[in-house]
Amino acid sequence: MGKKVIIVGGVAGGASAAARLRRLDEQAEIILLERDEHISFANCGLPYYIGETIRERDKLLVQKPEAMRARFAIDVRVNSEVTAIEPARKMIRINSRERGCYEESYDVLLLSPGAQPLRPPIPGIDSSRIFTLRNIPDTDRIKAVVDRDNTQRVAVIGGGFIGVEMAENLRERGLAVTLVEAAPHILPPFDSDMALLIEQELRDHGVTVQVGDGVAHFAEQADGLLVTLQSGRQIVADMVVLAIGVAPATGFLKDSGVALGKRGHILVNEHMATNQPDIYAVGDAVEVVDLVTGQPAAVPLAGPANKQGRIAADNIAGIPSVYKGTQGTAILKVFDLTAAATGNNERSLARLQVPYQAIYVHPNSHASYYPDALQLTIKLLFGDDGKILGAQAVGPESIDKHIDVLATAIRLKGTVQDLTELELSYAPPYSSAKDPVNMAGFVAENILTKRLEVFTYDELAGFDPQTTVLVDVRSPLEFATNALPGAVNIPTDSLRSRLAELDKNKLILTYCKVGLQSYIAARILSQHGFRVKSMSGGYKAAAPRLA
Amino acid sequence: MGKKVIIVGGVAGGASAAARLRRLDEQAEIILLERDEHISFANCGLPYYIGETIRERDKLLVQKPEAMRARFAIDVRVNSEVTAIEPARKMIRINSRERGCYEESYDVLLLSPGAQPLRPPIPGIDSSRIFTLRNIPDTDRIKAVVDRDNTQRVAVIGGGFIGVEMAENLRERGLAVTLVEAAPHILPPFDSDMALLIEQELRDHGVTVQVGDGVAHFAEQADGLLVTLQSGRQIVADMVVLAIGVAPATGFLKDSGVALGKRGHILVNEHMATNQPDIYAVGDAVEVVDLVTGQPAAVPLAGPANKQGRIAADNIAGIPSVYKGTQGTAILKVFDLTAAATGNNERSLARLQVPYQAIYVHPNSHASYYPDALQLTIKLLFGDDGKILGAQAVGPESIDKHIDVLATAIRLKGTVQDLTELELSYAPPYSSAKDPVNMAGFVAENILTKRLEVFTYDELAGFDPQTTVLVDVRSPLEFATNALPGAVNIPTDSLRSRLAELDKNKLILTYCKVGLQSYIAARILSQHGFRVKSMSGGYKAAAPRLA
Ligand SMILES: Cc1cc2nc3c(=O)[nH]c(=O)nc-3n(C[C@H](O)[C@H](O)[C@H](O)COP(=O)(O)OP(=O)(O)OC[C@H]3O[C@@H](n4cnc5c(N)ncnc54)[C@H](O)[C@@H]3O)c2cc1C
Ligand SMILES: Cc1cc2nc3c(=O)[nH]c(=O)nc-3n(C[C@H](O)[C@H](O)[C@H](O)COP(=O)(O)OP(=O)(O)OC[C@H]3O[C@@H](n4cnc5c(N)ncnc54)[C@H](O)[C@@H]3O)c2cc1C
Ligand SMILES: CC(C)(COP(=O)(O)OP(=O)(O)OC[C@H]1O[C@@H](n2cnc3c(N)ncnc32)[C@H](O)[C@@H]1OP(=O)(O)O)[C@@H](O)C(=O)NCCC(=O)NCCS
Ligand SMILES: CC(C)(COP(=O)(O)OP(=O)(O)OC[C@H]1O[C@@H](n2cnc3c(N)ncnc32)[C@H](O)[C@@H]1OP(=O)(O)O)[C@@H](O)C(=O)NCCC(=O)NCCS
Repeated sequence: MGKKVIIVGGVAGGASAAARLRRLDEQAEIILLERDEHISFANCGLPYYIGETIRERDKLLVQKPEAMRARFAIDVRVNSEVTAIEPARKMIRINSRERGCYEESYDVLLLSPGAQPLRPPIPGIDSSRIFTLRNIPDTDRIKAVVDRDNTQRVAVIGGGFIGVEMAENLRERGLAVTLVEAAPHILPPFDSDMALLIEQELRDHGVTVQVGDGVAHFAEQADGLLVTLQSGRQIVADMVVLAIGVAPATGFLKDSGVALGKRGHILVNEHMATNQPDIYAVGDAVEVVDLVTGQPAAVPLAGPANKQGRIAADNIAGIPSVYKGTQGTAILKVFDLTAAATGNNERSLARLQVPYQAIYVHPNSHASYYPDALQLTIKLLFGDDGKILGAQAVGPESIDKHIDVLATAIRLKGTVQDLTELELSYAPPYSSAKDPVNMAGFVAENILTKRLEVFTYDELAGFDPQTTVLVDVRSPLEFATNALPGAVNIPTDSLRSRLAELDKNKLILTYCKVGLQSYIAARILSQHGFRVKSMSGGYKAAAPRLA
Repeated sequence: MGKKVIIVGGVAGGASAAARLRRLDEQAEIILLERDEHISFANCGLPYYIGETIRERDKLLVQKPEAMRARFAIDVRVNSEVTAIEPARKMIRINSRERGCYEESYDVLLLSPGAQPLRPPIPGIDSSRIFTLRNIPDTDRIKAVVDRDNTQRVAVIGGGFIGVEMAENLRERGLAVTLVEAAPHILPPFDSDMALLIEQELRDHGVTVQVGDGVAHFAEQADGLLVTLQSGRQIVADMVVLAIGVAPATGFLKDSGVALGKRGHILVNEHMATNQPDIYAVGDAVEVVDLVTGQPAAVPLAGPANKQGRIAADNIAGIPSVYKGTQGTAILKVFDLTAAATGNNERSLARLQVPYQAIYVHPNSHASYYPDALQLTIKLLFGDDGKILGAQAVGPESIDKHIDVLATAIRLKGTVQDLTELELSYAPPYSSAKDPVNMAGFVAENILTKRLEVFTYDELAGFDPQTTVLVDVRSPLEFATNALPGAVNIPTDSLRSRLAELDKNKLILTYCKVGLQSYIAARILSQHGFRVKSMSGGYKAAAPRLA
């Protein structure tokens, strides 16, 4: 027999590592220890099973223990919780439902224990009406309650990915859903301007969205659970789903000598090795390096967990594969919209004091002359050297494609200049000859080369009306419909003949529908000697603010 | 007034250059000369207008001359053919429908004359029943014939992108369509194994596909046009659409001194400048450099034409932008399938004697446990150093995404190792935690590191049955349904206990459904001392060959 490898945690990171390790090493003894009854299940599918988009529970079980035994000769032990590890003795302690407590020695240990939902000590948190979602038993419990006729009002606490997915799926089940988020907007990977679009989609589908208001306390009532928010606002719910984030499930490592980060994440090097000899760790439980900024980060997502599992297995088998960092590429469906992001957002860049610029484009999902072209919103963040720092996109289709292209460009250290050159697939049903990502590159390049100076709607209030002129360059009809206060209307196409109407001593601020026409207008004006800035994203970007 | 720039050709390359140049230079005098009545139309939409997916003809006219005049102050002259240019005098000759023949001087000349459909001197080619498709008048002519009740049988000659799009659209109009291709398979950017999938889709939708058979001659008959193929086979058609390729529309440059390539393409440098001072050229009419191989190439596609137009405008305005080459990213819809490709295919690599390896993956379009996951076929070509040389993909959805990611990786000089690391967006409705592109990277990496040796179905016949054993590692049921001749059945999951049944002195050839299980089996066998190869793409890749 070869070396004895023990893997703690049998789902995304752990099961992937086990399978890869077996393919690399037929001789190793591989033991997979899982606290729960299930291994290798589809965590990411759980909300959709509750929502009944996924109809068969069995589909959630991607690999069963027997199958892992048969195909990969893995000694799978479920209902087996690792309670302590002792690196000095190379021993671990296991609490097994069947075998009781016992010890097992290892040559190599791989930790993939994942994370667990946060459950802060809010008064009333122990109510039986409050649920969290991480695994199959959680899912069964929630679904049983949802399936009951008298469950009608749900409060989802936390507007992260899982919270929003649960809000959508519970709404799809016909429930009255209130989504509560303490931060000023839902979905922390997005900036507020993009998150607003998603909040609107939730509202359009009947979800009550309550942002900027955290839970103060819970209290049982005769007719449900009374949820009182910090603002004093109250919601009565038959059921509460708590989804305010996760913490690494690393409690069993407390006295092990395995180095943990401030928030309990396991610290690893680029080979996924911990500070202890022959102990590796992967997945939600580890701290990673942000690929873009080089800063430590915790990114609990399945793609990184799976990849890290494969890389750890490589290293255990003697192949020195390297994990270069996580960029946080993430996506979610929100009713008829898709929202996706990769890299950093404005908030994280500001916190890290990384200088950046932001641009928006609102291209169509495919050629505008081909039926069903739909407008997208893409936001691109980049540095003064053109380095791509992050991107966010929201729209009814092809969002995954654009973010994946941008994620690839970030990973391969591309610049906005590279985006202008990408040769992406174009036929009318799929894109435009100038792909949305090219377009984002063009706009960013124009900013970097100072051919375009922009301001945001939020900055508008800061300009002195005495020294600025706000020019709406759209058509008179559009102007009449919904102009910004104080704007004068000079359509782009008549601008050249109406230059005399504008004062060269003032700063000209142009805006249009999405920023394209006002860019053209700005080019005309600046070459005629005006100082001019164009409003980023146009009226489209301002509209959610005006509401 | 600034410099006088004349642009020849007012559609993809020409109109894009004109618009960009105006944004860069408000002072230039810009004259756009177009032989046709229309500028700036959607060439790529023409088949879909004939097929009535695009219902309004007006949608095809992306920008009208008046609009280009108003917004960009461009002197647009339609029905104006440039008949000659004289670089020595910096003069061009124009034949205008309104103004007759006249000369015009230029400071800078930009050529974007595009290409024209080939019409070889086949006997009978001048029949009024034979049409080609390039512009709006062609479209009007074809649509008028299709709209007639007595048009029922169409032969489309040429299985390139336009031929296949026309076959699809005419079939959508209810016509009986025969697609004739002289080469052994349709769609030259694809290898035959991938093209077969698309031919099948055409047949499944009632298109008769006739490959490996060119037209010998056409002859008018009382009831239609008789199309006689090289094989002697005959088709009678009410209408023939000839789509056998294009030639650069550079006849007017014959005696100009502008250097042309062997097939008449304009030769340009990386700034899109020709050999003549102050003359630039872009689009279908120019020869480009293949980004992957560095070889000269002609790639008549709208994305490159648009980008080159923008780059030429930059250079005319004094910005030294560079065009680095074309990789040939292309896509098309074929009924319910999408087919896309980027970079080189096996044929072109073999011709250029570039060593390469090919792998196939057949992943699902999204998580298999989420409804409506559909199987894709992705082919990846790469060099011994891991350089990505090309990719092709066919499937019912997300093909554009995967090819765009691969196109981005090629453009940014990524390797197959990079593909394993890409962090792409994953939630169940969109992809898998191991994205299809990651998966292609894994398989390619395994080949490069010699952890996996493969053979193709086509190579199977070359193995000596005396010294090889063909092992079907699928389930007994699958084996019973459609095994390859001569195979024995040992399912992967029982392989470890049945090793004794196999002869270590023989080469073991494993196969399964798509190549994944047989890879696992091969890993087991090779580590137990067997020499083993796994069949690339599995039964799925072999099936079209068996039919
Ligand atoms: C509802 C939901 C939806 C999600 N949706 C997405 C999505 O759409 N996209 C995406 O990328 N990610 C998504 N995720 C996140 C993704 O599932 C995780 O990032 C991924 O599963 C992490 O893998 P892991 O191996 O680190 O942890 P897990 O997959 O959680 O596996 C850890 C396992 O270890 C076990 N364990 C813990 N401690 C011990 C111990 N001491 N002894 C024995 N066993 C132990 C646990 O029981 C658990 O089964 C979602 C998660 C949830 C909960
Ligand atoms: C039916 C069809 C479908 C297509 N589908 C796709 C697709 O899905 N995706 C894709 O990427 N590409 C597609 N293409 C190709 C794409 O349209 C071309 O690559 C692109 O238009 C080339 O741009 P260009 O400026 O070089 O030429 P063009 O767009 O053809 O413009 C050239 C113009 O120059 C004019 N001209 C020529 N000679 C002279 C002269 N001497 N004087 C004055 N004017 C002159 C012509 O009349 C023409 O209008 C398609 C083409 C066709 C015909
Ligand atoms: C099910 C599970 C054990 C599978 O692990 P796995 O065997 O590594 O993964 P896959 O089945 O996707 O197979 C990938 C392997 O097949 C190979 N492969 C895929 N297609 C192939 C093909 N056509 N030909 C040859 N090899 C192929 C890949 O190279 C890879 O092997 P490698 O890692 O040795 O290079 C693991 O992914 C898991 O537990 N998933 C569910 C849990 C989870 O991820 N949850 C979070 C998301 S919901
Ligand atoms: C219509 C046509 C003249 C448009 O040319 P264009 O003005 O360069 O292209 P677009 O309208 O897409 O606009 C792109 C410009 O807007 C800018 N832009 C786009 N969105 C913007 C935004 N939200 N904010 C600021 N600027 C924006 C881009 O940066 C780019 O400007 P730049 O080149 O100066 O950097 C030309 O593309 C054409 O003729 N097309 C039809 C023919 C054709 O392409 N056929 C083949 C395909 S079917």
